[in-house]
Amino acid sequence: LKELKQVTVIGLGLLGGSISSGILRCCSGVRVVGYAHRQSTRQKAEELAIASHISDSLPQAVLKADIVILATPIGIFEQVFEEIGPHLPAGCIVTDVGSTKVMSHKWAQAKLPDTVCYVGSHPIAGAELRGVEYSRDDLLDRAVCILTTTKETDPHSIEVLKHFWTKMGCSIKLMDPAEHDRIYANVSHLPHITAASLVNATNENHINAAGKGFLDTTRIASGPADIWADVLVTNANNIIDGLDELMTELHRFKKVIKSGNKEQIAKLLDKARNKRAALVDYKLKHKEII
Amino acid sequence: LKELKQVTVIGLGLLGGSISSGILRCCSGVRVVGYAHRQSTRQKAEELAIASHISDSLPQAVLKADIVILATPIGIFEQVFEEIGPHLPAGCIVTDVGSTKVMSHKWAQAKLPDTVCYVGSHPIAGAELRGVEYSRDDLLDRAVCILTTTKETDPHSIEVLKHFWTKMGCSIKLMDPAEHDRIYANVSHLPHITAASLVNATNENHINAAGKGFLDTTRIASGPADIWADVLVTNANNIIDGLDELMTELHRFKKVIKSGNKEQIAKLLDKARNKRAALVDYKLKHKEII
Repeated sequence: LKELKQVTVIGLGLLGGSISSGILRCCSGVRVVGYAHRQSTRQKAEELAIASHISDSLPQAVLKADIVILATPIGIFEQVFEEIGPHLPAGCIVTDVGSTKVMSHKWAQAKLPDTVCYVGSHPIAGAELRGVEYSRDDLLDRAVCILTTTKETDPHSIEVLKHFWTKMGCSIKLMDPAEHDRIYANVSHLPHITAASLVNATNENHINAAGKGFLDTTRIASGPADIWADVLVTNANNIIDGLDELMTELHRFKKVIKSGNKEQIAKLLDKARNKRAALVDYKLKHKEII
Repeated sequence: LKELKQVTVIGLGLLGGSISSGILRCCSGVRVVGYAHRQSTRQKAEELAIASHISDSLPQAVLKADIVILATPIGIFEQVFEEIGPHLPAGCIVTDVGSTKVMSHKWAQAKLPDTVCYVGSHPIAGAELRGVEYSRDDLLDRAVCILTTTKETDPHSIEVLKHFWTKMGCSIKLMDPAEHDRIYANVSHLPHITAASLVNATNENHINAAGKGFLDTTRIASGPADIWADVLVTNANNIIDGLDELMTELHRFKKVIKSGNKEQIAKLLDKARNKRAALVDYKLKHKEII
């Protein structure tokens, strides 16, 4: 594997800032160049020293990059690919950390020059907070990082990224972008909509009576709306399927509660309980949670 | 207020055990008698010393009680009221810590003698774990405790219970049982069903890809199924209304996601985000969370 000299991170929010500072912590000798569109973000990033250099020029920022990481909202990926395309050095690896992957691959294919290689990345980490000021250089510790690849993806670039994310504390899984989007519609995008819908369905006059259970169940609804709107819109079909399945389950509960059949209610609850227990066991066993 | 000499806790699970040991910690001089149906539970309770005395006789346990607290599943309240009725001393205050209140008031009215006073209690605290071994004498610290009362409820008994739960670390709110059940259908029972439905709707082949967001959103689905079946069955009508409202919100999301209208999606997400932010502010301001 060729030695990494420079990684450029485009977009310095919670995730971009955490990746930048994580590289400083985990990959000694690598120069990290951070780019943010807003002057105020760049200033905060400078103050927090989350990169080796903060650039106010997108072309300049990528000019000598071995790896370019897009950490902006998904909605501007296409435009960023277009803008950086002519300035990327040959052999550069371009990746992104967006939560959906089919569209990113499509845009990369259309907008990036043939002299560079695109691989999708999705580190399963984050928080409901936003902004570079919430960056943590250990955010990716123990995270799973999905790499999305197609038959056309350059094998060497996959190896470089595997090595890079592993150094950042991640364990790696490879997926096809369509498979990725199907799975994460189910385990991430659907819970997000559910949490938001639960809050929206709660009577204004009742909500302050909520306890810890409600707060936990709805935590992710505090995530940034614009970033999540991009996620949902780029994975619409899978999410609609998931919503239908969720509503089927809710109807099932409604039916047994209406009938007053305690055994049937307990059976549905127990199914969920056992399934979640198996998930927690898996996560502990694979050291994805502690 | 008359001096408390004995409190009897019936049912020594996570909540009953925590209340027992909490009384030992917070109310010095008060004798705590714990009763559990199962010998194995009594033995664990003895070993953990969560009460002054563990009794294997329900009549004996309540014979000298100033306050009796039911901490069993709701489904056996009626039977417990019937069994303890003849043995309760005159002036005894009977309460319970169940999550629904209309049925408890009804059963108390029908089964308890006129010589005792019933008030409903609902400390908003708990965990997804079950069993006396998970008892914590500080479980009620900072919890809100709802007291449910009707026009017939003895005012002195309300004062005694207010004082008691306050000593246990709770802040007190008074509610009518019907109002209580309406509110907690919304903020507690509906989230529980939602969490369980989300787990049940998740493809077995996808679930292990879940991250922290999914785990948090579904945490309460790991709660004990039989206890929760009792809760849901005793608050069916309110919960069915809540399920309908939730499904309306999910349909709203489905519609805007289908249309691909990013602004409309962001608007729904933002509504939830702002509403939850206001809730968190309220909780912080009232020191219900830290």
